[in-house]
Amino acid sequence: MLQIDKEKLLEELRKLNPKKVGLQFPEGLKSKAIEIADMLDYEVFIYGGNTYGACDVADEELSFCDCLIHFGHAEIPLKFKIPVIFMEVFDDIDLVPPLKKNLDHLEKKGKNIGLTTTVQHIPQLKNAESFLKSSGFNVYIGKGTERIKYDGQVLGCNFSVCTNIEDKVDYFLYIGTGYFHPLGITLNTGKEVFLMDPYIKKIENLEHEKTKLLKKRYAVIEKAKDAEKFGLIVSTRKGQYRMKEALYIKKELENLGKKAYIFLTREISPEELRGFNMDAYVICACPRIAIDDQSRYEKPILTVSEVSLISQTKEYEFDVIGGI
Amino acid sequence: MLQIDKEKLLEELRKLNPKKVGLQFPEGLKSKAIEIADMLDYEVFIYGGNTYGACDVADEELSFCDCLIHFGHAEIPLKFKIPVIFMEVFDDIDLVPPLKKNLDHLEKKGKNIGLTTTVQHIPQLKNAESFLKSSGFNVYIGKGTERIKYDGQVLGCNFSVCTNIEDKVDYFLYIGTGYFHPLGITLNTGKEVFLMDPYIKKIENLEHEKTKLLKKRYAVIEKAKDAEKFGLIVSTRKGQYRMKEALYIKKELENLGKKAYIFLTREISPEELRGFNMDAYVICACPRIAIDDQSRYEKPILTVSEVSLISQTKEYEFDVIGGI
Repeated sequence: MLQIDKEKLLEELRKLNPKKVGLQFPEGLKSKAIEIADMLDYEVFIYGGNTYGACDVADEELSFCDCLIHFGHAEIPLKFKIPVIFMEVFDDIDLVPPLKKNLDHLEKKGKNIGLTTTVQHIPQLKNAESFLKSSGFNVYIGKGTERIKYDGQVLGCNFSVCTNIEDKVDYFLYIGTGYFHPLGITLNTGKEVFLMDPYIKKIENLEHEKTKLLKKRYAVIEKAKDAEKFGLIVSTRKGQYRMKEALYIKKELENLGKKAYIFLTREISPEELRGFNMDAYVICACPRIAIDDQSRYEKPILTVSEVSLISQTKEYEFDVIGGI
Repeated sequence: MLQIDKEKLLEELRKLNPKKVGLQFPEGLKSKAIEIADMLDYEVFIYGGNTYGACDVADEELSFCDCLIHFGHAEIPLKFKIPVIFMEVFDDIDLVPPLKKNLDHLEKKGKNIGLTTTVQHIPQLKNAESFLKSSGFNVYIGKGTERIKYDGQVLGCNFSVCTNIEDKVDYFLYIGTGYFHPLGITLNTGKEVFLMDPYIKKIENLEHEKTKLLKKRYAVIEKAKDAEKFGLIVSTRKGQYRMKEALYIKKELENLGKKAYIFLTREISPEELRGFNMDAYVICACPRIAIDDQSRYEKPILTVSEVSLISQTKEYEFDVIGGI
């Protein structure tokens, strides 16, 4: 179950002694907004828009508040207009029973495991590590770049906790749900990845999904080769503002005889882009948008790192955001 | 046909001598974006999001530019972070032939006409006035509040060019398309309104649509009476930021024993609000959102002025934004 540490929250607020407090929740935590608002003896303002990560902090929109509490994500140390309290929300589900159940799958593949997860399972990761060690594995948990708060923590845009230890491990074990993060790990490291879903207690080798994804992405890239007008979409979300990449890609595409235009927006959707009649788009924002949302668009949507595959034959690279 | 005065645009830009130029287009003009971008010898950045009016200027999002060109709307004199050039886009369709065709409908109703339209027909309004005068009518074209640039110009949120002359006229003649503006006029003035669509050359008395709308709105208000938790949605769009109204409504609802929470967002949609589980919403933003989009929401969505009808029996008032 998801746990919000309310005592810690109140303590942090007492330190700042604000009058107006902003609250921001990702989709899965919006239902907690009223409980939190009712608990606080401050004037409260809630950000109502979509929130996709610690890269997406509404400090500009709520800059009239004295501080902002951003729920559910571990801090990315960006520069904010007002003090921002990152209230991580952890899931207390025990990772040992699902590991115990699936141990034989791992044993077949080798003894050196790279262990990784998303922020909500971080407090349980130590137990998982201990259990795996006591079962005879060598467990490696990597340190990340400055974008990453916890050892072993992956983001959709940053797999540095894995790339930093890839030489030592036979394969990675990702604990969590959904294909996006573990596919990023396998494409960034070249190593096999096991996805273990702790809720349904099942383990899956991602090799098949990886092949499927690459096939799809190469088809999209192939289609983009015929495009003449490219829209380069830069996000106005603080931690997804990849203008440097957009300016670089603009030149790169113009060198290929293509036309390229830079667009800025917060909510990236097929509806808002349709009117511009571009032949293809490059998402200079969260890498997840191109990979996960392609089917919603009529036109090819590339990640930043896929652009170079339009003109060169080289290995596929998963898009990452390295710096802050 | 829609006309962009490119010479004027280039002249305005020469005066500012910018390096980076931002461009912003409402939906209907997005297809012109590339033509404009290609014409300009500056570094160009295009706002990609939805744009709903002169109240919705992306100067914050494009504040790294040296100026912003906002297309299609007449200026509302808000405070902007960078210089903003409002490039109105006019339709050159002649209003006299459709008036000629429908004159008998007007004659039956009286000689004193309040004449009004939206910004794209403003340059043609003089001809329409002359024709009506030469046909024996007394024509009144009202001045608006500071939000309104042109005599006779209505916005979806401001009908001051009509309320300022309502004592003198028998009825209003609105030239344009869609029911929203003319319904606003009839509900703000109590006068009958004729809608004349210059494209299909047809005239329509709005009394029937007015009755239909009121019936719908009273049903929504009735449903909102049972709501316990109200979400008051304040827009972060510059000219739709109605925080004062939200704070007032919060007290008003709390006095009725309801709970009320203030939300801030740019793109107001059922998807982003669903997670908060409110029983009803009040749109402290563009009045059009509640009236036009109610059917997209499962919960009652009220305008600012409809809130008082929860507790009082009084005449229905169309929501307006009076100041800047």
